[in-house]
Amino acid sequence: MRSGRGADYDQAVVDLCGVLAYAELTAFERIAFDARMAPTIGAKAALAGMASAEFHHFRRLREHLHTELGVDAEEAMAPFVKPLDDFHDQTAPADWIESLVKAYVGDGIAVDFYREVAALVDEPTRSLVTEVLADTGHSEFVVEHVKAAIAADPSMAGRLALWARRLVGEALTQAQRVAVDRDDLARLIVGDVGGHVGDLAAVGRMFARLTEAHTRRMASLGLSS
Amino acid sequence: MRSGRGADYDQAVVDLCGVLAYAELTAFERIAFDARMAPTIGAKAALAGMASAEFHHFRRLREHLHTELGVDAEEAMAPFVKPLDDFHDQTAPADWIESLVKAYVGDGIAVDFYREVAALVDEPTRSLVTEVLADTGHSEFVVEHVKAAIAADPSMAGRLALWARRLVGEALTQAQRVAVDRDDLARLIVGDVGGHVGDLAAVGRMFARLTEAHTRRMASLGLSS
Repeated sequence: MRSGRGADYDQAVVDLCGVLAYAELTAFERIAFDARMAPTIGAKAALAGMASAEFHHFRRLREHLHTELGVDAEEAMAPFVKPLDDFHDQTAPADWIESLVKAYVGDGIAVDFYREVAALVDEPTRSLVTEVLADTGHSEFVVEHVKAAIAADPSMAGRLALWARRLVGEALTQAQRVAVDRDDLARLIVGDVGGHVGDLAAVGRMFARLTEAHTRRMASLGLSS
Repeated sequence: MRSGRGADYDQAVVDLCGVLAYAELTAFERIAFDARMAPTIGAKAALAGMASAEFHHFRRLREHLHTELGVDAEEAMAPFVKPLDDFHDQTAPADWIESLVKAYVGDGIAVDFYREVAALVDEPTRSLVTEVLADTGHSEFVVEHVKAAIAADPSMAGRLALWARRLVGEALTQAQRVAVDRDDLARLIVGDVGGHVGDLAAVGRMFARLTEAHTRRMASLGLSS
């Protein structure tokens, strides 16, 4: 791919698609794995359907990397394998409800973040990223089940709020590691590549938006953030 | 559903679709889970694709149960949850290669068996069963990887041959349990429902065919059966 916006911009776009592709592949795995803990066949089938949707997203990104950006998907994903695997290893849910909170709260922040970055890149990457980040029906399912679990056992709320804080902390740790390693992607975000005018105030506003959305999600589960 | 071939026949058809639907759902789960052990991202993506194909099959069967047979899929699957879960619990692969052998050898026998039973039922159930049993590309992938692993470490062949024998033994144990519990399905197979003429010699030939196909699969992996 040659965007005409420079090699650093091109690399940032490849990084965005690469991290997102591996994130979708691991989302597939994790949701499929969590389906084993589902209390009913219906819940299990619902999770399996969501996992399949994530896999379909992965396939779209892999195709985009190959045909539009002219790079090998495995290579593009490689730098993000360790941070994403580490994140998931550090935040293995202890039970079904923790897995639902992780899917909703953790993926929620990730999706919001990827959407912010997508706004900084050109078509057709932007459209594709927006498309693969569309909610696969997970959110509604999760909110319903978590609220029902807390209603049945209100003492659960404290544990789940702590769990969500651990998820956010671990996500920030790994994001920081990626930012250090992937210079072009980090500089795209702070507005320092491809002729995009640097604007640290805009980055600050982005973090404020991410935080607000997170607080809203926690509230919708009935949890303090 | 009223096939005009009697309530016992109708129940056997529902049982066939029910066991197959739950088998596809657990195949999805198991393959997705095994993808975690995949040694490369490419292998992981290949397994995830197969798992998604299994989920698609599950969805087709669920729809068929609902719209053609007029029964709730969860109810139709319920009698088969324990035997299939027990089978998988008893045969958890210790590593990546064992998981591949299980997918190929275990699913191979199951698919052959379901195809034999499908020959005894009417359209459109027969077509659907044949469709969802189509190879999802798993076989070629497995044969290639298992042969390469044995070539790299020939001492592995003995362990894997024993593993396959354990899989067959456990499958027969669970099949027998299902046969005792699901009278209509068992009688469909031995030719005792729906006006189908009983023919125990035909059942004997069916088992001979299943055994032959199993021996062929083992040989294609380079293993003795």
